[in-house]
Amino acid sequence: MHTFDYPQSRMLFDRACEVIPGGIYGHFSPAPLGQTAAFPFFAARAEGARFQDVDGNEFIDYMCAYGPMILGYAHRAVDDAFRNQLALADTVSIASPRMVELAELLVERVAAADWAFFAKNGADVTAYAVTIARAATGRRKIVAIRGGYHGTHPWMQAPGHHGIAEDDHRHCIRIPWNDFAALEHVVAEHEGDIAGFIATPYHHPTFGDSVLPAEGYWQNVEALLRKHGIVFILDDVRCGFRLHRGGSNERYGFHPDLICFCKALANGYPIAALVGTDALRTVTASVFHTGSYWFSAAPMAAAIATLQELDHVDAPRLLEIYGRKLNDGLIRIAKSHGFTLRVTGEPCMAYYRITDDESQMLHQRWCAECTRRGAYFAPHHNWFVSTAHSDADLQRTWDIADEAFRALKTAA
Amino acid sequence: MHTFDYPQSRMLFDRACEVIPGGIYGHFSPAPLGQTAAFPFFAARAEGARFQDVDGNEFIDYMCAYGPMILGYAHRAVDDAFRNQLALADTVSIASPRMVELAELLVERVAAADWAFFAKNGADVTAYAVTIARAATGRRKIVAIRGGYHGTHPWMQAPGHHGIAEDDHRHCIRIPWNDFAALEHVVAEHEGDIAGFIATPYHHPTFGDSVLPAEGYWQNVEALLRKHGIVFILDDVRCGFRLHRGGSNERYGFHPDLICFCKALANGYPIAALVGTDALRTVTASVFHTGSYWFSAAPMAAAIATLQELDHVDAPRLLEIYGRKLNDGLIRIAKSHGFTLRVTGEPCMAYYRITDDESQMLHQRWCAECTRRGAYFAPHHNWFVSTAHSDADLQRTWDIADEAFRALKTAA
Repeated sequence: MHTFDYPQSRMLFDRACEVIPGGIYGHFSPAPLGQTAAFPFFAARAEGARFQDVDGNEFIDYMCAYGPMILGYAHRAVDDAFRNQLALADTVSIASPRMVELAELLVERVAAADWAFFAKNGADVTAYAVTIARAATGRRKIVAIRGGYHGTHPWMQAPGHHGIAEDDHRHCIRIPWNDFAALEHVVAEHEGDIAGFIATPYHHPTFGDSVLPAEGYWQNVEALLRKHGIVFILDDVRCGFRLHRGGSNERYGFHPDLICFCKALANGYPIAALVGTDALRTVTASVFHTGSYWFSAAPMAAAIATLQELDHVDAPRLLEIYGRKLNDGLIRIAKSHGFTLRVTGEPCMAYYRITDDESQMLHQRWCAECTRRGAYFAPHHNWFVSTAHSDADLQRTWDIADEAFRALKTAA
Repeated sequence: MHTFDYPQSRMLFDRACEVIPGGIYGHFSPAPLGQTAAFPFFAARAEGARFQDVDGNEFIDYMCAYGPMILGYAHRAVDDAFRNQLALADTVSIASPRMVELAELLVERVAAADWAFFAKNGADVTAYAVTIARAATGRRKIVAIRGGYHGTHPWMQAPGHHGIAEDDHRHCIRIPWNDFAALEHVVAEHEGDIAGFIATPYHHPTFGDSVLPAEGYWQNVEALLRKHGIVFILDDVRCGFRLHRGGSNERYGFHPDLICFCKALANGYPIAALVGTDALRTVTASVFHTGSYWFSAAPMAAAIATLQELDHVDAPRLLEIYGRKLNDGLIRIAKSHGFTLRVTGEPCMAYYRITDDESQMLHQRWCAECTRRGAYFAPHHNWFVSTAHSDADLQRTWDIADEAFRALKTAA
């Protein structure tokens, strides 16, 4: 099997380092990849489940743009909707009818939604949800899960991050995931001071295994929050529309007051949404929040088309089937080479870890060996599958994984 | 002259009120328009300097999407660059060469820039600049101008806004614009505690006249900040590329450490940029900040084309000429009807106010009369002109303004 080289990516990265701090930043930074020499840094084309880098190497993509891509790159129906709206009007001085149509569509399909609000980043809506919770309750404190990610506003980041001070977290209390007793304790300790609780539908930290909700966890949380008048915020930015057509709370049977959507909502076009219940409608209208491009119509047209297409193909079912097959195959192949591949979280966006090595170096090396053979695997973030991933992609991915394990043993 | 009706806009707004808190939110909310019956709420098409609402009424647009539109809607060169990139790759799992090219272009044209960083909202980069200032200095306090707008994160909003507490402002000190003595006082009072100073190139509050920098103000500010090691942040989100091709500081002769760009950078496509000096490069690379769509390639391609086209037409000169003509004409027409129209700020993005009425109701009514005849004027925000506004638009606008003043007198 041919292994890839990246001379053009490397040249571009050298240029990037001259004009961009760190060359490539944020969640796209090469640093967490570990064996960076095995990874491409710049994409030239993308279509379906694959992208091509600037050196002409092609990859089956298991990161899906870290979540936005759900129907495949360059999806015809979504792109047509986007381009047709673009030809009419996109960012104008007044709103677009598409905004009303998209809000109506979300209200219709998301049981927890009586209204919708649109922005650009996931963090735009997680931050908005928290401010609404404070305005609604007149309280300040927010409870979140330790290791949970809600964006990069100072209060959302772990203390110790550069530029972030202890002080930025003074109103944010972190508790362990799946620990209902910890929530009870915090609620009792700060009786009458807690404005909101924010969490993802299940725990999917970076650099760590995913953990699904324990039996009864969400139902207990919901009852406690209701009892104490604490606003229940679901951050569905990463999981939204992958686990259920109407919000991931439906998958696990609970009822948040506010749900934050982003990523998969428009198959890669930039839009985020906050939806919520009638009880919070008036206070939401009173909390000012806006951005330069939040009324742009083309991403809204793309979101409408994406939601329709997700229904058309029954995406959550398709993604789960593909995810299970992929994971079972990879676990079996690892085993055949004497390795243990641990797969956690929901099958369609699982977190992978080779457990035979505490340092995770072996896992990094395996992801690197797969990537340089054409299956793009970032080592310390959950992967994603899309409805564009085919059985042929699956077989090819297994063949690549097989050879990557063989290469690991040869090198060892 | 025909005056417009808005049955379709009204019907859509009723639908919006069912599914969106307040119907239309943020800076697009109809509330600040005052005489809302005179305004369209939803756009169907936009081209050049004009948009058409859902009732088929056409408007010469003096809000320019509140800043993003600078070359005219549906600008061919920009849209071609965007669509061509879209056909290749937009939001993918790795970055695009367009990111490097755009950073190189900004570093080349913006004297204050040794590097660039890209995000989506203006507030993404104003917030990042403040965090960088804190990381660089190990200090917490930020000095900003009273009434200055830098986005809607809690610390940026005026105390008293819903959901915003006193506490959100504990590290933000507000001083009056153009008051160098106030800055000296604050710096002395908080010696060694001030991380950064953030301001727009000139003062352009909502609901108030714009005020240009006083002679020597910026030079004094710069010298004081340098002396005390305070990071100098220019929020050029609204003015950027309208006043000068290389950052509005060039227009007024000063040297910030960080400049925030957004709005006009890609003629309406969603992108924001932070640029800065070499001294802050390493610390910037250490401050984590990211978003779901921050690496999308098509808006970067659009930004490159926009910057090139702005140079091609010498946009700041063109905008100033059109702005001066527009303003002089409107002042003259107002005078001919016995009214005083006060025009403040830079000519190409001036703030207008009829001063014959302290309540501003008369000004609201005049904007309304203009709008329902086809010149879209929001009453309490600065207006914008674009390079697509023509002499024919100018004459038509004057004719509309003339008749609007006549209507004011008839109604009075």
